[in-house]
Amino acid sequence: MEEALHTLWDEVRDLSLSTAIDCLPTPPTPLRFLRHYVLPNKPCLIAAAVPHWPALSLWPSNSYLRSVLSDTDVSVHLTPSGKADALVSHPGDPSAVCFASAAVRTVAFPEALDLVVASKEGKAVAYLQQQNDCFRSEYGALAADCEEEIPWASEALGCAPEAVNLWIGNRLSETWFHKDHYENLYVVIAGEKRFLLLPPTDVHRMYVRDYQAARYRYCQDSGDFTLELEDPTAYVPWCSVDPCPSFEEEQREIKKFPLYFNGPKPFEVTVKAGEMLYLPSMWFHHVQQSQDDSVLTIAINYWYDMQFDIKYAYFNFLQSIPYSPPADPSLSKNKDSSLDESDIISDRPSIDTSCNEDG
Amino acid sequence: MEEALHTLWDEVRDLSLSTAIDCLPTPPTPLRFLRHYVLPNKPCLIAAAVPHWPALSLWPSNSYLRSVLSDTDVSVHLTPSGKADALVSHPGDPSAVCFASAAVRTVAFPEALDLVVASKEGKAVAYLQQQNDCFRSEYGALAADCEEEIPWASEALGCAPEAVNLWIGNRLSETWFHKDHYENLYVVIAGEKRFLLLPPTDVHRMYVRDYQAARYRYCQDSGDFTLELEDPTAYVPWCSVDPCPSFEEEQREIKKFPLYFNGPKPFEVTVKAGEMLYLPSMWFHHVQQSQDDSVLTIAINYWYDMQFDIKYAYFNFLQSIPYSPPADPSLSKNKDSSLDESDIISDRPSIDTSCNEDG
Repeated sequence: MEEALHTLWDEVRDLSLSTAIDCLPTPPTPLRFLRHYVLPNKPCLIAAAVPHWPALSLWPSNSYLRSVLSDTDVSVHLTPSGKADALVSHPGDPSAVCFASAAVRTVAFPEALDLVVASKEGKAVAYLQQQNDCFRSEYGALAADCEEEIPWASEALGCAPEAVNLWIGNRLSETWFHKDHYENLYVVIAGEKRFLLLPPTDVHRMYVRDYQAARYRYCQDSGDFTLELEDPTAYVPWCSVDPCPSFEEEQREIKKFPLYFNGPKPFEVTVKAGEMLYLPSMWFHHVQQSQDDSVLTIAINYWYDMQFDIKYAYFNFLQSIPYSPPADPSLSKNKDSSLDESDIISDRPSIDTSCNEDG
Repeated sequence: MEEALHTLWDEVRDLSLSTAIDCLPTPPTPLRFLRHYVLPNKPCLIAAAVPHWPALSLWPSNSYLRSVLSDTDVSVHLTPSGKADALVSHPGDPSAVCFASAAVRTVAFPEALDLVVASKEGKAVAYLQQQNDCFRSEYGALAADCEEEIPWASEALGCAPEAVNLWIGNRLSETWFHKDHYENLYVVIAGEKRFLLLPPTDVHRMYVRDYQAARYRYCQDSGDFTLELEDPTAYVPWCSVDPCPSFEEEQREIKKFPLYFNGPKPFEVTVKAGEMLYLPSMWFHHVQQSQDDSVLTIAINYWYDMQFDIKYAYFNFLQSIPYSPPADPSLSKNKDSSLDESDIISDRPSIDTSCNEDG
């Protein structure tokens, strides 16, 4: 099985992907988009994607946003580190990890933006986002600054977007590896986003395991976070790999997840202001934002329904095949059972997490 | 593995196929064709596909064809039974089978057509076909009667056809289960063709095995066939299943190939004069022609290059996984080693047979 999987990973790259993501100077025609990218499930970057959007010149000015959204309540996601929907130390067992969701507060936009600007590691990191079509609800006042759909994509895919989401964060907000069941068109308006991408065929390299679900609570008065396990107990199947471990953890992570760290490198693409990434359905992605402290990264993404077709059936078949390389013996004393490399992919019913943190 | 494969077979049907092939009254737009059929790798039948083609009224008249092609040499495929690129008794070992290709002769069209009309089981069955773009070479004199490409398909797929082939045969010409590495648009001009179709995900149900290659020789004077093994010895990976075994062989075939005979039924579609079948790349297909003795079946097919994308990589991965159900004990005395159910799919380099008999 090991050889068959390695062949699959290589063949997908050799056949239809290349070493770098295709970069198109301007948007493709609907037919070309469908034929060359959606059909083969292949990402592309579009350079001058939305030159006509007023958002490009208006939104980088915080005063514009504050003025237009002065009376608007929005959702802000709060975490102590900037990592939400991420694996962090289990509150009941420090040798294990759990799946932690952000604390969510609804506050007036100007206050929410202050929280983002003031975000600091170890204190509180705020990320303006809510993946419930928030651009067309909470941020409706900004509608005229961009488009309610990507016209050539809607024509290609034969439908309007299912959800349009807005994201405003600083360098600390980071999105853990995951996949979505949508065709995703991701436009950066200010700052930049750095994506690490892996095709769906690499699913075993993500070590998807079930993790106990927890959620941050935030005490506004003290500014302290507590991490509380969900009650009743729930489990979330989630990617185990942190692609950017700290220096201290690096060697241990490589030993725990050799298929990721010793296998083909992920595709890396930085999306700058005015650019658009086509992120195909089912691709694993990890996202970081502009590392410049003085810059907020603002982005908007359009989720279109994917086709649950033969590719999806192939993916489910692939994922159902148990495979892990032999565990490193030096890790055998690790009590972190949820990260045990000898686990097979669980077929426990999943919590649907496709509408959680997404970059 | 057994459960995972059965789930895959069912899921492909549940998700994107239905119980019957989609039938469209008229051709789809290029976008719709790409989105709803090519992208999900899903067949469809188009009823009034080519109402404007003169071929529909001209070709059913043998006298028209004889007249236009009176001076044209064409390739005729000759077999004793109508089955070419089929598994037949091995000439050196009656307990085994081998892969038999037709004898190919080049004769003047009027004579070739006489051979087709006179085809009789046990005597000689002639099939006018040659999958080398024969319509645009041997049959160039008929070019004005149809189109050199299917315009909406060329626009969707972004290219002209790689090959266009003509087929003229009677009820005896039959095509064994196989797949092609092309997107195939198959137009019936006279008579009808009955396709049995299985998606690529069903590859294990076809029991693809390596068979020794042989070719018929035809002695025109005696009218006798001899089956000669290829020299040097060659092997062809080929589907083992004959979906229409004789009454005497039926029970034995069901025991030998239970995944086929006891699994989901193949899709069945009859393509009548004026209709077009979109046969997606990599689908297994078995083809029979109009059973009416007085009718010749005439068809033309357009092969467009397929994309060797993530679906193809998934297919190769699936095919590389060894799986066969337990062999029926009553067959264990059968010496036919090439049909042994305990064989795994061979990874011996394949002879490319994609340009052989194709319906």
